[in-house]
Amino acid sequence: MSSLRERACRANLALASTGLVTGTFGNVSIADTAAGVFAIKPSGVPYAELKPDKIVLVSLETGEADGSKFRPSSDTPTHFELYRAFKCGAIVHTHSEYATAFAQARLPISCMGTTHADYFHGDVPVTRPMTRAEVERDYEVNTGKVIVETFGKGKISPDEVRAVLVANHAPFTWGPDASTAIELAEMLEFIARINWRARAIAPDTARPDQFLIDKHYLRKHGKSAYYGQK
Amino acid sequence: MSSLRERACRANLALASTGLVTGTFGNVSIADTAAGVFAIKPSGVPYAELKPDKIVLVSLETGEADGSKFRPSSDTPTHFELYRAFKCGAIVHTHSEYATAFAQARLPISCMGTTHADYFHGDVPVTRPMTRAEVERDYEVNTGKVIVETFGKGKISPDEVRAVLVANHAPFTWGPDASTAIELAEMLEFIARINWRARAIAPDTARPDQFLIDKHYLRKHGKSAYYGQK
Amino acid sequence: MSSLRERACRANLALASTGLVTGTFGNVSIADTAAGVFAIKPSGVPYAELKPDKIVLVSLETGEADGSKFRPSSDTPTHFELYRAFKCGAIVHTHSEYATAFAQARLPISCMGTTHADYFHGDVPVTRPMTRAEVERDYEVNTGKVIVETFGKGKISPDEVRAVLVANHAPFTWGPDASTAIELAEMLEFIARINWRARAIAPDTARPDQFLIDKHYLRKHGKSAYYGQK
Amino acid sequence: MSSLRERACRANLALASTGLVTGTFGNVSIADTAAGVFAIKPSGVPYAELKPDKIVLVSLETGEADGSKFRPSSDTPTHFELYRAFKCGAIVHTHSEYATAFAQARLPISCMGTTHADYFHGDVPVTRPMTRAEVERDYEVNTGKVIVETFGKGKISPDEVRAVLVANHAPFTWGPDASTAIELAEMLEFIARINWRARAIAPDTARPDQFLIDKHYLRKHGKSAYYGQK
Repeated sequence: MSSLRERACRANLALASTGLVTGTFGNVSIADTAAGVFAIKPSGVPYAELKPDKIVLVSLETGEADGSKFRPSSDTPTHFELYRAFKCGAIVHTHSEYATAFAQARLPISCMGTTHADYFHGDVPVTRPMTRAEVERDYEVNTGKVIVETFGKGKISPDEVRAVLVANHAPFTWGPDASTAIELAEMLEFIARINWRARAIAPDTARPDQFLIDKHYLRKHGKSAYYGQK
Repeated sequence: MSSLRERACRANLALASTGLVTGTFGNVSIADTAAGVFAIKPSGVPYAELKPDKIVLVSLETGEADGSKFRPSSDTPTHFELYRAFKCGAIVHTHSEYATAFAQARLPISCMGTTHADYFHGDVPVTRPMTRAEVERDYEVNTGKVIVETFGKGKISPDEVRAVLVANHAPFTWGPDASTAIELAEMLEFIARINWRARAIAPDTARPDQFLIDKHYLRKHGKSAYYGQK
Repeated sequence: MSSLRERACRANLALASTGLVTGTFGNVSIADTAAGVFAIKPSGVPYAELKPDKIVLVSLETGEADGSKFRPSSDTPTHFELYRAFKCGAIVHTHSEYATAFAQARLPISCMGTTHADYFHGDVPVTRPMTRAEVERDYEVNTGKVIVETFGKGKISPDEVRAVLVANHAPFTWGPDASTAIELAEMLEFIARINWRARAIAPDTARPDQFLIDKHYLRKHGKSAYYGQK
Repeated sequence: MSSLRERACRANLALASTGLVTGTFGNVSIADTAAGVFAIKPSGVPYAELKPDKIVLVSLETGEADGSKFRPSSDTPTHFELYRAFKCGAIVHTHSEYATAFAQARLPISCMGTTHADYFHGDVPVTRPMTRAEVERDYEVNTGKVIVETFGKGKISPDEVRAVLVANHAPFTWGPDASTAIELAEMLEFIARINWRARAIAPDTARPDQFLIDKHYLRKHGKSAYYGQK
């Protein structure tokens, strides 16, 4: 099982090196479905002190941590809910600056250009604010549930829009593996920056046509993709 | 007493390495209550030339400097007032860019998200403008007094909101030790950046519910905290 | 022909080192008119893995790639159209942050100062949005055609304004050689930053007089130029 | 005379290392009043290729360059006018991003806080736009004259506000020596950043009281200064 811990440790250090995390905000988890667990960063441990044996393993069945002497990230129940609903291979959470600003503004990151459409097939949604009951009891579980609800009610495919903003909190991204989920966290911040700048000087600009968005998303993703090498 | 000077020197150099200080703006002081003194940066000395023997010791009783050949920071009387009122162990002053912009705009940094609530239990207040009499005589003493007044009149706990903006001037942060006070200066600037970006595109966004703020503050602070390792 | 591939490889790495490209967005091509080809980055290859033998050669006559085992950049047909219409020696495409924000806002970068006029003789135009037919069939060819149309209908000289914003997409720049085209990509982003900042605080500022723009452009360019060394 | 050239070369390289200059925008000159000359950067030479023997000497009497094989900066006549009017020891010109944005917006950098007042005793003015006649003939001389006019008509002391924005162009700063003039260029950009951020979220904020500005300026400057070491 050491291999999964090592990969999760490397992925968390890779996330730290992107510049997307400030302080101890942010974490990556990686699932090993064959083993029935996911590996996640311990809570509040500085990246400089992170080692594979501090990574915590958590059951994909029950959400419970193994007998590690370290507590898992406080966000662990949120990751657990997302693994169950979205069947992804890795999840990244950051408080990256621009994406978090959209979360605090309770605004989705609308798809305003091809840079966005190259990575996300439509707007990156923002959840509804959570209720008192959801916050006061099982807060981190409910954070996961409200994300899943957002995709269900909005009829958004979590395979085509692999990112969300939790209202007044911050973004999560996911993918088949850690490097994809980290890349999506970086791209989410990049499109948030561009969207923010366009919005600040031109709040009423028309959205691009759906056929342009589809063109860019589908030339990189799906069975007719022709971007990149075969 | 050399140990306190060395720690204060290291703390000032650590502050400089955060990127929060421009030119010679900014300083850290550390109190040693057993010895009845606090140690502070000398006035106008470039960080590159800072050495422990240039650090000035100041009485926590009288606010007077020891017989050092260096003048203490011109902000020393402000630190003195804060030590007396807030009983903290270290104080940081910067002119960090976004926090200073809020100070110039005479706006508090409102608590708009969990990133803020993870560190500060409510809005970071801004002082009222100082009067002519307060500015022209004992200006630096009065800067401390107006900060203390802001917390008293606003019924804000200086243990739960360990930061303030002085109107048209810049921020101060404090904590039990220098590393905490420096971390709070960094986090203050980070939440100022996020708040500024959200406000610029969505000035009328609703504030988050108080129960969400309480949840995040209390999961990291206080006796029921469950963030981090035990 | 290895020399052209080496130059194109170096130019793509030089572009990556400017900080203008995020992920795999961005590419440089270089024409060799004597040989009747241009050399372009392969599609979706990370800059860290770029080598001269992965550079793809494309006919300036037909737009068809040589028998390379690598696919050329998906933007290759756009470069081809620009070489045919503008007779330039090199083309750069980026998704640089501020220029892309103007593209998403469908706003030209208006010439508001001498920094702009030192490099571009007038506004940097934005194309019209492309039609469904243009997007769904031969999209990259049509991207080139709509750029050329923008200069033709707007009576803009592609020799004096060597940059364009493709609506909802991103910028292209060009010049006689790769270093000029890269420098223009950097300057385009720089003037986009300045223009964006001025516009955000003063959206209705008067434009500078045309004689000031002409003065700055012509003191650096053309036969009466007196900037730089002879 | 090699010593002056060496100092001017070092000062230009120091300016480049501040990050305030993009491309070849920006230059420093240093006066040697005893020798009756000032030393300035050659026109359009990249900083990486700058050497003392490429620095050009210009008469403080006539404004004419010595018999150097290099042309002086195209801004030389502007420097000459400023030396004659302001009797300063060094002049810096940059196109730093935020200060240039204010110049393009034709807005002064208003004194909104103590950070500003620590360095500049009042608003940093912007010149009026230049006339066609001023631009078309002796443009760089007239740039200097319009700066001098701005201080004369506005009754601004060039010893207390050692910076100006040329409308639609960019800033100049000056001081008794090159390190001061460079420091003022850095501080000008820093206060421009803070002012811009405050203005963007609070355009109608009241200005600070004049007694606060005087307090900060005079505690660092003039005969009653008590900031720094004696």
